[in-house]
Amino acid sequence: MQSSQKTGAKSYLITKTLDPENQETPIQFIHKDFVTEKLFYRRNHFSYPNFVSSFYWLSIGGLVNFSRTFSLEEIQALPSKTLKSVLECAGNKRGFFKPMVFGEQWQKGAISQGIWKGVSLRTMLRYTGVLEAAKEVVFEGYDFGVRTDSNDLTYFSRSLPIEKALHPDTLIAYEYNGKPLPFKHGFPLRLIVPEWYAMASVKWIKKITVIDHEFKGPFQAVDYVYYPKKDSDEGKLPVTTMKINSTIQQPIDRQILNTGFHTIAGIAWTGRGVITKIEVSVDGGMTWSFANLVQSPEKYAWVRWEYKWEVFEKGEYTILSRAMESEGGKQPKEAVWNRKGYGYNAIDTIKVKVE
Amino acid sequence: MQSSQKTGAKSYLITKTLDPENQETPIQFIHKDFVTEKLFYRRNHFSYPNFVSSFYWLSIGGLVNFSRTFSLEEIQALPSKTLKSVLECAGNKRGFFKPMVFGEQWQKGAISQGIWKGVSLRTMLRYTGVLEAAKEVVFEGYDFGVRTDSNDLTYFSRSLPIEKALHPDTLIAYEYNGKPLPFKHGFPLRLIVPEWYAMASVKWIKKITVIDHEFKGPFQAVDYVYYPKKDSDEGKLPVTTMKINSTIQQPIDRQILNTGFHTIAGIAWTGRGVITKIEVSVDGGMTWSFANLVQSPEKYAWVRWEYKWEVFEKGEYTILSRAMESEGGKQPKEAVWNRKGYGYNAIDTIKVKVE
Repeated sequence: MQSSQKTGAKSYLITKTLDPENQETPIQFIHKDFVTEKLFYRRNHFSYPNFVSSFYWLSIGGLVNFSRTFSLEEIQALPSKTLKSVLECAGNKRGFFKPMVFGEQWQKGAISQGIWKGVSLRTMLRYTGVLEAAKEVVFEGYDFGVRTDSNDLTYFSRSLPIEKALHPDTLIAYEYNGKPLPFKHGFPLRLIVPEWYAMASVKWIKKITVIDHEFKGPFQAVDYVYYPKKDSDEGKLPVTTMKINSTIQQPIDRQILNTGFHTIAGIAWTGRGVITKIEVSVDGGMTWSFANLVQSPEKYAWVRWEYKWEVFEKGEYTILSRAMESEGGKQPKEAVWNRKGYGYNAIDTIKVKVE
Repeated sequence: MQSSQKTGAKSYLITKTLDPENQETPIQFIHKDFVTEKLFYRRNHFSYPNFVSSFYWLSIGGLVNFSRTFSLEEIQALPSKTLKSVLECAGNKRGFFKPMVFGEQWQKGAISQGIWKGVSLRTMLRYTGVLEAAKEVVFEGYDFGVRTDSNDLTYFSRSLPIEKALHPDTLIAYEYNGKPLPFKHGFPLRLIVPEWYAMASVKWIKKITVIDHEFKGPFQAVDYVYYPKKDSDEGKLPVTTMKINSTIQQPIDRQILNTGFHTIAGIAWTGRGVITKIEVSVDGGMTWSFANLVQSPEKYAWVRWEYKWEVFEKGEYTILSRAMESEGGKQPKEAVWNRKGYGYNAIDTIKVKVE
């Protein structure tokens, strides 16, 4: 018989649904900037696509001077760009909306981060040219299926306004963390649109089309729209840039702690500007202190932060975190409720008991 | 380059804390009666114990005629018993209490089931005898640590009343699903106490002591006690038998569904008697229908059930499940709130939207 010293414990993806596969990152336990493939959240609208990548070609057409197809080898031979970027599902934290909304009840883990390598879409569009009338660029993925609101087959497609499409950091990515893109994250090619919620970062790109009008696919005109009213579409707005946000990773909500010293730790991120400060409150928001940034804030990436807490009085404590960014934005006390549950970014709140 | 057909999706344990390790079973995705080691929920009060199992002896002492130690080989040579039993953490579904309580916020997955093989404790106690004065039997595990409410080292210990200890189905178990107990589930020996919440099924048993009084260890006299009041201990009662309960596995809460046919499926279990019926409501409890039992109900085990639902009208639906058992018990509309959040067993409720 062997000695039984096995103390290894690890965290796993948290399953929401299996087909389509939707799993969230155990974000409370992620203390690195590079989420591994194993723990990178998975968000799909349809079953995984089934295509033969040995015949893979990416076509670019529509309002261009020269329609073209690119092989993966041709794309990888172009000048590359590498950047660290958060991907956050627009539905991250949906489960916190009150009143509750329908759809996957994401907690705090529909977010991950790592290093993406690819070609600027701008670079590729130099080979095709773009006509004067171009207004948007449409990206269609290989994934398709039947939506609950229609009987037809629909491909997952999204567009970007031409300015965002031509931003040098909008990438056609083929590597993640130094390796080929994992299949579940878009192999061989996915879009990476820094600063935007991740529905924009289309996976398994099949074709790119430049158009002169507003794209109206259901993942753009029906889903990924903020509907502020429960029973009408009045006041609707498209979901685009990630809102400023922060998440407390530890302690865990409703944890029971000893008196003494504790580290309150978390991450903060924003789609506009750069995180500049994170404040923490241990008294339900009456007083606030600055957290220490564990690293220098960078555009597109989350910043890790910590706050050392000494607590000697037993009782219940409400701990909050709120982030501020370089353009003057601040994490709000309440998130803006919307029918489909996008963009939840209220000041993060947990409760602990000290005994 | 290879073809990229990889559609495998699987569920994983859901991490609550890593040290001590507390992970729940993705119960919505378990459609078998034998939860694998990989997906069996893990509930620990302390770090995993560190002991050398090649020197493993189990000692039985206290109010017995002959104190003795047993080697694992001796125990395995005794007449064995095999039974299928649920293990359910007393804190299962704690996260659903309103007002919220402190402690691990278990959802519906602090429950698992499989086949346990071992020796009746009763059989072992024939070798030691039990004195007339015996009132309880105390089981001490190898796991220990510092509790938040004390500065001393504490071993995890629990007792059983002598009648329950002598019940022929109270096992000293050494196999799970036909294999040696996994280390994380108590290797080499754990107690299995059918019908009781799983805090009674002490893991990594170190010693067994027969006593003539009420055992007052903190995992018996402080924790695993129902405290009906927030601020006083008035009315407290020990946690023992599992309450009648049921869980809807599918659909998922807040899922968006098509019109048409859906299967509502789940499990039901009880610590008293045997499950006899499960009713399902798709209109928030106004009307109820019987679910089909997928298997014959057995003592100690959960029963799987299904209900075929046809839905043609779009809208929001509140789906409930409630179980009944052979002694006349019924799953209640509301769970009895208690300060530490044990025994949540309200009628299970989910909401879906049909569009």
